[in-house]
Amino acid sequence: MCNTIESSHYKPKEECGIFGIYGHEQAANFTYLGLYALQHRGQESAGIASSDTHHIYRYAGMGKVLDIFTEYHIENLKGTMAIGHNRYSTTGSSFLRNAQPLRAESRLGPIVLAHNGNLINTEDMRRKLVDEGSIFQTSIDSEIIIHLMAKSGYNDFKDALIHALKQLTAAYSVLIMNREKIYACRDPFGFRPLCLGKIDGAYAIASETCAFDIIDAEFIRDIEPGELIEIGPNGIESFYPFDNINVKKQSLCVFEYIYFSRPDSFIFGHSVHEMRLKLGRQLAIDSPVEADLVIPIPDSSISAALGYAMESGIRFEKGMTRNHYIGRTFIEPSQKIRDFGAKIKYNVVKSAVKGKRIILVDDSIMRGTTMRKIIKMFRNAGATEVHVRISAPPTKYPCFYGIDIPTKSELIASTHTIEEIVKYMRVDSLAYMTTDSLLKAIDRKDMSFCNACFTGRYPVEFVQPEDENLKFQFDAGNGEFY
Amino acid sequence: MCNTIESSHYKPKEECGIFGIYGHEQAANFTYLGLYALQHRGQESAGIASSDTHHIYRYAGMGKVLDIFTEYHIENLKGTMAIGHNRYSTTGSSFLRNAQPLRAESRLGPIVLAHNGNLINTEDMRRKLVDEGSIFQTSIDSEIIIHLMAKSGYNDFKDALIHALKQLTAAYSVLIMNREKIYACRDPFGFRPLCLGKIDGAYAIASETCAFDIIDAEFIRDIEPGELIEIGPNGIESFYPFDNINVKKQSLCVFEYIYFSRPDSFIFGHSVHEMRLKLGRQLAIDSPVEADLVIPIPDSSISAALGYAMESGIRFEKGMTRNHYIGRTFIEPSQKIRDFGAKIKYNVVKSAVKGKRIILVDDSIMRGTTMRKIIKMFRNAGATEVHVRISAPPTKYPCFYGIDIPTKSELIASTHTIEEIVKYMRVDSLAYMTTDSLLKAIDRKDMSFCNACFTGRYPVEFVQPEDENLKFQFDAGNGEFY
Amino acid sequence: MCNTIESSHYKPKEECGIFGIYGHEQAANFTYLGLYALQHRGQESAGIASSDTHHIYRYAGMGKVLDIFTEYHIENLKGTMAIGHNRYSTTGSSFLRNAQPLRAESRLGPIVLAHNGNLINTEDMRRKLVDEGSIFQTSIDSEIIIHLMAKSGYNDFKDALIHALKQLTAAYSVLIMNREKIYACRDPFGFRPLCLGKIDGAYAIASETCAFDIIDAEFIRDIEPGELIEIGPNGIESFYPFDNINVKKQSLCVFEYIYFSRPDSFIFGHSVHEMRLKLGRQLAIDSPVEADLVIPIPDSSISAALGYAMESGIRFEKGMTRNHYIGRTFIEPSQKIRDFGAKIKYNVVKSAVKGKRIILVDDSIMRGTTMRKIIKMFRNAGATEVHVRISAPPTKYPCFYGIDIPTKSELIASTHTIEEIVKYMRVDSLAYMTTDSLLKAIDRKDMSFCNACFTGRYPVEFVQPEDENLKFQFDAGNGEFY
Amino acid sequence: MCNTIESSHYKPKEECGIFGIYGHEQAANFTYLGLYALQHRGQESAGIASSDTHHIYRYAGMGKVLDIFTEYHIENLKGTMAIGHNRYSTTGSSFLRNAQPLRAESRLGPIVLAHNGNLINTEDMRRKLVDEGSIFQTSIDSEIIIHLMAKSGYNDFKDALIHALKQLTAAYSVLIMNREKIYACRDPFGFRPLCLGKIDGAYAIASETCAFDIIDAEFIRDIEPGELIEIGPNGIESFYPFDNINVKKQSLCVFEYIYFSRPDSFIFGHSVHEMRLKLGRQLAIDSPVEADLVIPIPDSSISAALGYAMESGIRFEKGMTRNHYIGRTFIEPSQKIRDFGAKIKYNVVKSAVKGKRIILVDDSIMRGTTMRKIIKMFRNAGATEVHVRISAPPTKYPCFYGIDIPTKSELIASTHTIEEIVKYMRVDSLAYMTTDSLLKAIDRKDMSFCNACFTGRYPVEFVQPEDENLKFQFDAGNGEFY
Repeated sequence: MCNTIESSHYKPKEECGIFGIYGHEQAANFTYLGLYALQHRGQESAGIASSDTHHIYRYAGMGKVLDIFTEYHIENLKGTMAIGHNRYSTTGSSFLRNAQPLRAESRLGPIVLAHNGNLINTEDMRRKLVDEGSIFQTSIDSEIIIHLMAKSGYNDFKDALIHALKQLTAAYSVLIMNREKIYACRDPFGFRPLCLGKIDGAYAIASETCAFDIIDAEFIRDIEPGELIEIGPNGIESFYPFDNINVKKQSLCVFEYIYFSRPDSFIFGHSVHEMRLKLGRQLAIDSPVEADLVIPIPDSSISAALGYAMESGIRFEKGMTRNHYIGRTFIEPSQKIRDFGAKIKYNVVKSAVKGKRIILVDDSIMRGTTMRKIIKMFRNAGATEVHVRISAPPTKYPCFYGIDIPTKSELIASTHTIEEIVKYMRVDSLAYMTTDSLLKAIDRKDMSFCNACFTGRYPVEFVQPEDENLKFQFDAGNGEFY
Repeated sequence: MCNTIESSHYKPKEECGIFGIYGHEQAANFTYLGLYALQHRGQESAGIASSDTHHIYRYAGMGKVLDIFTEYHIENLKGTMAIGHNRYSTTGSSFLRNAQPLRAESRLGPIVLAHNGNLINTEDMRRKLVDEGSIFQTSIDSEIIIHLMAKSGYNDFKDALIHALKQLTAAYSVLIMNREKIYACRDPFGFRPLCLGKIDGAYAIASETCAFDIIDAEFIRDIEPGELIEIGPNGIESFYPFDNINVKKQSLCVFEYIYFSRPDSFIFGHSVHEMRLKLGRQLAIDSPVEADLVIPIPDSSISAALGYAMESGIRFEKGMTRNHYIGRTFIEPSQKIRDFGAKIKYNVVKSAVKGKRIILVDDSIMRGTTMRKIIKMFRNAGATEVHVRISAPPTKYPCFYGIDIPTKSELIASTHTIEEIVKYMRVDSLAYMTTDSLLKAIDRKDMSFCNACFTGRYPVEFVQPEDENLKFQFDAGNGEFY
Repeated sequence: MCNTIESSHYKPKEECGIFGIYGHEQAANFTYLGLYALQHRGQESAGIASSDTHHIYRYAGMGKVLDIFTEYHIENLKGTMAIGHNRYSTTGSSFLRNAQPLRAESRLGPIVLAHNGNLINTEDMRRKLVDEGSIFQTSIDSEIIIHLMAKSGYNDFKDALIHALKQLTAAYSVLIMNREKIYACRDPFGFRPLCLGKIDGAYAIASETCAFDIIDAEFIRDIEPGELIEIGPNGIESFYPFDNINVKKQSLCVFEYIYFSRPDSFIFGHSVHEMRLKLGRQLAIDSPVEADLVIPIPDSSISAALGYAMESGIRFEKGMTRNHYIGRTFIEPSQKIRDFGAKIKYNVVKSAVKGKRIILVDDSIMRGTTMRKIIKMFRNAGATEVHVRISAPPTKYPCFYGIDIPTKSELIASTHTIEEIVKYMRVDSLAYMTTDSLLKAIDRKDMSFCNACFTGRYPVEFVQPEDENLKFQFDAGNGEFY
Repeated sequence: MCNTIESSHYKPKEECGIFGIYGHEQAANFTYLGLYALQHRGQESAGIASSDTHHIYRYAGMGKVLDIFTEYHIENLKGTMAIGHNRYSTTGSSFLRNAQPLRAESRLGPIVLAHNGNLINTEDMRRKLVDEGSIFQTSIDSEIIIHLMAKSGYNDFKDALIHALKQLTAAYSVLIMNREKIYACRDPFGFRPLCLGKIDGAYAIASETCAFDIIDAEFIRDIEPGELIEIGPNGIESFYPFDNINVKKQSLCVFEYIYFSRPDSFIFGHSVHEMRLKLGRQLAIDSPVEADLVIPIPDSSISAALGYAMESGIRFEKGMTRNHYIGRTFIEPSQKIRDFGAKIKYNVVKSAVKGKRIILVDDSIMRGTTMRKIIKMFRNAGATEVHVRISAPPTKYPCFYGIDIPTKSELIASTHTIEEIVKYMRVDSLAYMTTDSLLKAIDRKDMSFCNACFTGRYPVEFVQPEDENLKFQFDAGNGEFY
């Protein structure tokens, strides 16, 4: 049997990473490196589009950045401006046609777009557009932005873009390029991050600051929620085209801090690693337990586990290794191997845990199946007690703003009580953070966060289309395969 | 140096072959075989779309049919209806995005389209569509058909299709599929062929009848110029939606008889091989010459050469071999090999031509460079006289209806007199057919043909866009590369 | 079901083509082109080895020449001397390890070898070598030559080579290269062809002269049976190391004339095309029949059919087309198509044969299954009579000298009488040549030919190993797969 | 410019990992998983050979295990016994022919071999073999083992194997398979590890125990230095064929503890992770320094850094991230990026190190170029002091026993004093361990280790071939390219 390793859906999936640069001789190569640094945000496909003010060049492929682009591609992505995109996606729509950046010809000339986020409540708009005769060629929601621009009636590119964005609620951090300029915009809620950097006088934009580090760019500041940046021959300009923007309405995705972003990135103005340290410390305060070792599930929980160890005084230990030579699929023996799905990725350092009471720190539990296997692996390795501490509240609700989280019925915290989970996982104790603790730890009074996946309180209401006929829009691309 | 073999543009290029089938369990597999039989009409990319009435499935790739599709693809192209497309194209736009069948989501639901031909005079329409906010995602003209349907305002699929087609003049033989039905239409001029066949009660449609032979389908009749066929759950229906259709206006592409179609096909109701035999005979009557052997340039001129030999009584001889293991590119030695471009494809059978006076029969001369090399090869092999006879009039004008012919300035017959060509080619004599002879040989009083490539009399006027700004429409895809 | 087209074994398979060149800047590129011209002799794998006197460079791959080699490979095959090899092989041993040229390190330094033919009666030698401690790393018989050289005890490369070759009986045309020189040798029986050419002062060696034509090399003469050629810094030298060589013992493969070689080649000193014309004429004299058309099975039988037509006065007609876009495998519909195996390759030109009495000319019949399908296709197309004429005697015996012919029990002419074959094929008449007629038509009193596949009289006796334990030698590589 | 990431030679390279299993239905699949777990020991090529007692099956490819093998391959690697090999190699000989397991046919029947280590002082033997007429087909030293067996004169497989191994000094851990049995042997010095495990009654052998964990096999014990294991239908048997084996002569590679082996493995009977903890603790005792943070270079130094932190009481911190999406090559911008070679792999967590005095713990320094860049990255991130502590003595000498370490002239510790390195690296302090401290920390009185890379005291003398003519043996494969 040939299995997909990711099928376990052990962790939520970020749906995209974006990068752009204007005014640099090495535009395509830097975009390539930026996307490489943002690879953790999406590994299904990647693409780069560039412009030399005369033509737009574009290349995209399935897989990872280093596998897709050759020197030939980078050399032919001409010009001093470029935008790029890493995509993660659900299996069903995994094909090249959906790789971004999208490109289209319109009355405004060529439009190229790279979108991180998930547009919601666009059913009516899409229906209206289609009713008026627009055709959709991809199955990704981002295509609607280009249609709205093309139908705006405005002759000015920026006016058309603003017109389009104003019709959308959320969630988007988006890069848009025409032959002459790059536009970057973050929705007024600020769900997804977007950062501004500078290198050799050229401006760069990226989902996370780690993409600046690799090219030696300097991090300037975040693009603010509701801010639109235009970068062109006359330099950079900032606009706030949306009304009624206020900090209270902001809904920064707290999961970026908890799990998605790289620990070496600065997100929403603060260090991701520092945030996770704080979460770990708070977790230790809230849910202490007597034990010998604090062990992270590598690699994402290391920072939180360090925080927990620091606060509790319990020794931090490397109790697991992670196999990084992993691919998309592996061949499973017909004879069942115990906990195979976890073993292909992890192994316990037996000598470290034998005879020890351990605290496993992780940042989230989705279905719980992998965590259960991991716990069993530690028990088999001789751990006498296994306590699990999660550096976030229980994940109970799906996300509609750009994260791929299992449905409610699949989320173990949604269908089971803590006691039930403890029993199912055969763990000695299990503790999550509370939402209050989470916010206390983050300690950002200047900002407000989206906690919908924990609380079900969605900052922007999501209208589920009732009319089955509306379902047609998801068929563009269905049955397309790579 | 790595060269493209096709770069010599020795022969005009057919731009497409199409195949469709409705109501057969083996729809995708038969389409695959049909496309394989039509491979000579386009080798750049191929695609198949199928429908099981619920979903549309689609797969396309670069290259040749047998290399693109695996069992996995054929099995996943579900349903009992399918359409397919072979594409040839100019180098500039050679990338996967342009592979057909095109698909899009519209207010009419999903639309899938496979188009053979070249739409002309669509600049205004395209501009109008774009002005109204439509966006174009490919650089192929066929996309306009889907836009016109989507914007038609009609709720009925067929009405929308007719509305769209009525706005187009030519040239198209087109297959359109939605979830339930397949439509096939040939423009009122009938430029490109389209045939109707039947197998096991299912209907099949193909550019040429050779696609029926391979699946044991029976050839029923041609789709007529201006005829629209609908094939669905209620069987087949025929419509003539266009006004003022009359035979006199018909403009069947005579080059299909002369060169493009396979000799084993029936096109425009007659055998291609028979037509070529007739052309060869007429050529022998018009332009006799005393010689020892009649030799075809393989493989396309064999039929005409047989006709010439039959009429003249001069012995038909295999004077050349053709290497069929050819690929798209080959590695050329840095040291120049004489007549390399021709040698990679052809070799003279020296023993057959040494000391002989030969008549080379070919169907066309484009730039003349390859023919010149071939003549030299025969001289080097010891032919004492080389006479060239072309089974068509001189090709002097480009085609705007779906054939890739070099520009006027590149066509040797356009820039040189016969005497000059004779001198350039160092041939003992050269003769073409006249247009009158051509029509006489074809002897089809019931039909009228397009001879524009010989006469410059274009049956449908072609408006060259003057406004440079209109050029934008060709940029969708520029810089896209495979 | 995914089938291999070649599985029908419609035609015998040549097992190899070889090419070498010494003293030319373009050695690797010319070898590449030479192999391309010899592609018909083997399409399973191809390889080139070159030397710059310091190092040997080698690259080989599965598939066809134009698909295997890129500019990168040709550029890195350094030096002014090179040898190359095209391989056809039975499915069982189809893997990269067996691709030639073979290379090995020995006490004589590096040895590179490209072999066309099949070594017989080497069981004892192989057993002796193995008993003495030699190890075999491929499953191809050619490896034994290198072992014999390495174990010869001679310090001189040529002496060792002669020593090795003297122990072999047949069949080989072989190219051997060390760092400084190229050796070419044809076994004393001369089973397989080998030709000497010249270009720009450099010497070239090839299986057939068509490989010289593509690089503008001049054909000098055949390497004679039993001749060994040495080409090195001091020019070319010829040796006759074998005793008792006489023309009467020569056993040139007559099938090279009948089917294998390209018609534009000169083989055994004569034009292949001319030989086939003669065979066709003799066939017409021996086995006349009243009919309307003479039709070849394309492409190999065209020359013979032309001869038949010339002699009989019956019109030569193109009655079939051949699809050259064929690949190794195709996807067959689950619903059986009549005569599918033949249809994937051939189609009848119905208009040409309808209502006609036809004579099909072919060069051989192996199992008879494809011919039976072809006859049926002509009947279905409306031919009123179908007569088959074969331009060779019945193929009744397998070949042990380098040709892949089915086993006796699979050869229809071995298991059935002519009358039975006529009945099986539902043909109006069938005639082969006699061996006497064959030799009469070939009319080469200066040479003697191997007719073993027709007569069973093997010029060199083939000892079948009785001891099952000897079978081990075929296991090197068994289970190796590509 | 397209660069190979590995070109920096930042770390020494292990040359191989091996795995074997006898008597299990899932032999090939388990070998595949075992090789995957041992991927860190070699990523250039991988291969598996299996036997069903009748035939040997083999498949090998370039690249990583998960990319090479498909279900098709695993299914066709039939039988209940298999051995596999991961290979790392220097660039020059990077081609498929050298991929192991090697296979050959000999008088002992088929022999398959997977070798971890580097055979030394085999020049004379090789010369003798070649002089006696053996030929070499690969450029890897392991081939000599098969030759020695084939030439041994013994009819018994095991006798022949022992005869061959007795002629070799070191270094090898080797798996050898024929149609019926698997043999495993570790040289008397025990340079490279080799472990015995059991699953479902079947025996497994692996370089490290982490390969057992993934398939749920139980670790039994180490194969001892000088021990030969035979596993066959009659179960497992142990032999000690070598004379004068004593613990004092043992030369276990200490670098397996320091760097190569996975921390979750047990090697030479002890936990690798535990050993590294001890090394870190000893390092803290030997070379303390006042600082704020202890930071490992991920991932290999984490254990040692944890030990250092534990002992010193200084906080362990995640100061760097490592990008695991790395491939073999990347496209470097033409504009130089500072410290690019390090940046492509690492990034500093700025928020953690800003204003801090840090201790970087690493396990080795080769050329020093990458470490220099890393130090600069920490300085740029705001670290006020950077101290480097190496959990091993200075690497001054190359290894001849199976590890790829740069030459003496490239090793910075060989050409520079500590003070010079401190200056070159612009580091505040630098300390290595002493050999005494190393042994003290390891604390294994029952075993003796090879420290040649630190001390230059090679336990087995290495004879450099003086005679240039002997160089021929390295040419087999030179110029072979993939």
